[in-house]
Amino acid sequence: MTIITLLTSMKFKPMKIQLLLTGDELMSGHIVDSNSAMVAQLLSDEGYPISRKVTVGDDLSGLIEELDQLSSNSDVLIVNGGLGPTIDDLTAQALAMLIGKPLAQNPTALQHLQAWCKQRKSTLNEANLKQTILPQGVGIIPNPCGSAVGFSIQYKQCLIICTPGVPSELRAMIEQTIIGLLVTKFPITAVPKMLRFQTFGLGESKLQQLISKEIPNWPPQVQLGFRAGGILLEVKLIIDSKEYIDAHLKCYQQLQRLIGDYIIGSDEVNLSEAVINLLNNKNQQLTVAESCTGGLIASSITEIAGASAVFEAGFVTYSNAMKHKILGVNENTLDQHGAVSKEVVTEMATQALTISSADYVIAVSGIAGPSGGCKIKPVGTVWIAWGSSSEIKTQHLVVKGNRQRFQHRVAAIALDLIRRELLDIENSPSYFS
Amino acid sequence: MTIITLLTSMKFKPMKIQLLLTGDELMSGHIVDSNSAMVAQLLSDEGYPISRKVTVGDDLSGLIEELDQLSSNSDVLIVNGGLGPTIDDLTAQALAMLIGKPLAQNPTALQHLQAWCKQRKSTLNEANLKQTILPQGVGIIPNPCGSAVGFSIQYKQCLIICTPGVPSELRAMIEQTIIGLLVTKFPITAVPKMLRFQTFGLGESKLQQLISKEIPNWPPQVQLGFRAGGILLEVKLIIDSKEYIDAHLKCYQQLQRLIGDYIIGSDEVNLSEAVINLLNNKNQQLTVAESCTGGLIASSITEIAGASAVFEAGFVTYSNAMKHKILGVNENTLDQHGAVSKEVVTEMATQALTISSADYVIAVSGIAGPSGGCKIKPVGTVWIAWGSSSEIKTQHLVVKGNRQRFQHRVAAIALDLIRRELLDIENSPSYFS
Repeated sequence: MTIITLLTSMKFKPMKIQLLLTGDELMSGHIVDSNSAMVAQLLSDEGYPISRKVTVGDDLSGLIEELDQLSSNSDVLIVNGGLGPTIDDLTAQALAMLIGKPLAQNPTALQHLQAWCKQRKSTLNEANLKQTILPQGVGIIPNPCGSAVGFSIQYKQCLIICTPGVPSELRAMIEQTIIGLLVTKFPITAVPKMLRFQTFGLGESKLQQLISKEIPNWPPQVQLGFRAGGILLEVKLIIDSKEYIDAHLKCYQQLQRLIGDYIIGSDEVNLSEAVINLLNNKNQQLTVAESCTGGLIASSITEIAGASAVFEAGFVTYSNAMKHKILGVNENTLDQHGAVSKEVVTEMATQALTISSADYVIAVSGIAGPSGGCKIKPVGTVWIAWGSSSEIKTQHLVVKGNRQRFQHRVAAIALDLIRRELLDIENSPSYFS
Repeated sequence: MTIITLLTSMKFKPMKIQLLLTGDELMSGHIVDSNSAMVAQLLSDEGYPISRKVTVGDDLSGLIEELDQLSSNSDVLIVNGGLGPTIDDLTAQALAMLIGKPLAQNPTALQHLQAWCKQRKSTLNEANLKQTILPQGVGIIPNPCGSAVGFSIQYKQCLIICTPGVPSELRAMIEQTIIGLLVTKFPITAVPKMLRFQTFGLGESKLQQLISKEIPNWPPQVQLGFRAGGILLEVKLIIDSKEYIDAHLKCYQQLQRLIGDYIIGSDEVNLSEAVINLLNNKNQQLTVAESCTGGLIASSITEIAGASAVFEAGFVTYSNAMKHKILGVNENTLDQHGAVSKEVVTEMATQALTISSADYVIAVSGIAGPSGGCKIKPVGTVWIAWGSSSEIKTQHLVVKGNRQRFQHRVAAIALDLIRRELLDIENSPSYFS
């Protein structure tokens, strides 16, 4: 979970942007704050990195003090939260008291609210109206997807920008207005350029070792970073000036050659998207027969727009009886080898192919736990079958992690195995074993 | 996403705990910080709420300044991150410089590391050894699941506690050592007590209005809060002293009567768990036939341990051909009414019941988008069928949101409809329409 800087550390701009997050729900620990990561990522992609974040609860005097302190040592202060209709939404009030301006009904905000209510055929109530009472002199930041507008004001040497806590509204304001405000006020010449791709099956430390060993003369102008968010490991290369564009591309290509088969795709692609694209290119279809993943593979495929072109059917056969009844797995096979066996997943795969008339198939059967394991087949044991009517391959794995992690890892491995099949890649990684 | 305080705001303890999170990966926005929510929740459950969080990148002088400032106005400062083996892990160094003590090899930390390596049959390397070089005079916080120990030291009037960024290690240290440190140093008499339950189908503002209107004499000792995390809305009631236990319980019961059918269950229960529990109580089974949700309902059921007792099979019939072939939906019905119709979901439900021999069924067919909509059936249109062999009910909805949000909302609505069915509740909410 670290972004390593192999050689020099890079600074894009000396200006200082701070982020102030407000809300009791952020302090109580009942909400995980994802807004600050979103703000940081959207802004640093444009060359405006956040240098410090402060989070506080809903308390008026504390908030005023915080606004005072942070604005006195930032060029830009982005305040997130506290714009809602309830009494604990204090941002406008705190800002008004700090800058010494009265609160008054803002005509632009009122207009927005009226249009918003009209569009949703709801009536304006007093709680909503609170969202139009803003410090005098603020500039309005339109909110295309919510009732509360954002607003900004220059206070001493700091531009204070107030934004709502609802993630979709925050994102829209940043993309549609706030980046523009920053660009106008703080024009920058060197926007960082990023090339990135997603990998699966190689750990971060292994990858670091491999790169240090195989590409020893890494140029200092190209910053290498990793991000291990969920299942995939993202690799990214950043430069802060156009003049390094050749080195950037060269490193990117070297890395691609080095990591090869482990690369799922560029940018933000995930495993199911990659599989869908490959199937689309071949004009072929996939079916899945799931036991221990219980629909997770089907659902991760169908959450992608356009899945219907390559996916017509999936089978969730959780019990032995249903493996027999729906898929036609032989009862003798189930009796002799048990549901978690090479023989059963092979039959599941073959039958799912036949019933669905698909070209490719994935079948999984395993023990997700926490119960159901035994000495010979402990919790985490899984058999995966994959392939097409010409050949069904199988693999046995013991995948660690609690029930949900097991299911997500097995789904990812199964998708990666069919991805490799679609690409005619012979070998496969040792995955999480 | 607000926790409202209907009447008085409550303070559990006048002591001040601040949290300092360090790491470039937290500033870049590529990592969502879940540690601070975990720390806040674990500590406030014991009566030690966090009052302020600050997040900064890996920069030595900045870190020292931050440590200095924060420790000068806290009773306790918990530092998270920067204990790893790489050069950008700076916490020990910054702390040593702040408190004016030399860095030296800590014998307890070394012993721990040696035992750790021995247990994992790995050899001690120089990078690891860095984790044993700590400021002189610190107390060691054992790490039961990682190589880096934590440490603490009293500096002026502040107890500084340094912890690792790996979530499992952080959690173990808090539970096994840090809470004990706090209890010894800051004994408290009043631990907050919380009662909470999950609701579905009522918006936060509607619920607030309802409570204000129906329970006007809410006692000031009972703090009411809401949390709208994902699909469910959590309602919680907090008191900070045992003497209010009667008022606490009375409010809880009043609220339960008021909100009634919308309550999914207490504590952290979710919709699929609630449905599984109800089915278990009746010793009955559920099957699902999914089109637009593509396996999401099956997967949200099977991610719960013990699902196999009530769930044997699910059908993901994404195309018309598969609705006919696998479920036996009549081709004429599909032709005449289209896949997204009352008639088709009813047939899907009936047939899924028959094939699976389950007692209850959910079937959904809709248009998840972004394409596939038309004037009569816009994106977001969905038909849900649910019930048992004695009666299949249906409902038509238009559910807003992008593809994934649509799928999650439809899955939740479908689970809620079958939950109401299992509880013999006649009416159903208007949900997201």
